[in-house]
Amino acid sequence: MTTANGRTADHSVDTLFLERWSPRAFDGRGISGAEAMSLFEAARWSASSYNSQPWRFLYARRDTPQWEPMLSLLNPSNRSWAERSALLVVVVSNSLMSVPGKDKPVPSHSHSFDTGAACASLALQATRMGLQAHGMVGFDMERAFTELNVPVGHRVEAAFAVGHIGDKSVLPPELQAREMPNARQPVASFTFEGGFPPGTG
Amino acid sequence: MTTANGRTADHSVDTLFLERWSPRAFDGRGISGAEAMSLFEAARWSASSYNSQPWRFLYARRDTPQWEPMLSLLNPSNRSWAERSALLVVVVSNSLMSVPGKDKPVPSHSHSFDTGAACASLALQATRMGLQAHGMVGFDMERAFTELNVPVGHRVEAAFAVGHIGDKSVLPPELQAREMPNARQPVASFTFEGGFPPGTG
Repeated sequence: MTTANGRTADHSVDTLFLERWSPRAFDGRGISGAEAMSLFEAARWSASSYNSQPWRFLYARRDTPQWEPMLSLLNPSNRSWAERSALLVVVVSNSLMSVPGKDKPVPSHSHSFDTGAACASLALQATRMGLQAHGMVGFDMERAFTELNVPVGHRVEAAFAVGHIGDKSVLPPELQAREMPNARQPVASFTFEGGFPPGTG
Repeated sequence: MTTANGRTADHSVDTLFLERWSPRAFDGRGISGAEAMSLFEAARWSASSYNSQPWRFLYARRDTPQWEPMLSLLNPSNRSWAERSALLVVVVSNSLMSVPGKDKPVPSHSHSFDTGAACASLALQATRMGLQAHGMVGFDMERAFTELNVPVGHRVEAAFAVGHIGDKSVLPPELQAREMPNARQPVASFTFEGGFPPGTG
């Protein structure tokens, strides 16, 4: 059993996984370009089908000209807290991949899955650096596709706000009440030895 | 700059991300049920849209009755090396999620992405435990769907073989030659400040 960050794991696990969470109360400090590169470097070494590396990261650091246009893609509720983060990332995947023995790129079954894996590494590296990454699907994906020049054949997957945790008093009362690491269903609820029980399918 | 596992990162990063790789030469030793639970525990604490936790893990440990049926789902080339792993996992995602204020489950944009993120945590926890996880899409997903009783509305995402690394001499010569941590494209190839360059889309 492992305990960290107000969470209790039912089975022994590295505390890094408990320490990663998705805060909203960021403190408004920025990060350097080098720090942003360390986050992407972690994502870089993730696994993918045929090592196709389908992940693409479109990003803006606060106090740069790219910040406001990217922030404006977020829904108002996400914008209200993400504006105090240090880095915004819109994550896109390439749905096509090159495989040995094929002349042309072929559809990847796992481009979204592989890109999610890369983002998990990004978030865990953020935690290691004293930062946290908060993922979002609440943003204008159609506007992101157009305004960020996303190529045809690519999928807009998610966005992330990364920053230093601040005092939760910066949040409105309803978000202050939720500003803590959240819980999970037990392992037994999502693992099945040998398959789902007969009759489930 | 960080170096580990025969890999060189261009930017400072936790060595855990370099140490995780996808070997084929496993040594045929098993893992305990408790060790398997630690892998799933890491996945459990991953982030997901509305904390929907869409990941489902169907698994078999070697030397159990569930092993052979799950191994038989793999393509012959994957079966030839995965048969020396300790744990096989077929990963499924629930495409529907419950959200506040809706009577019925709604489609999730990110069920595959979130499930990939959970699997990255599983693989990194494996590395921490002296194991490695090798992901695969080369298995019979249709048979997996039917024979593992996967419910309608769920997607078969990927499979993993997890085990202890063995001597590469157990592999045929063509796989021995590839049995080393592989490389990646540089960060600059998949990150774009402010969006893809104009004209890309």
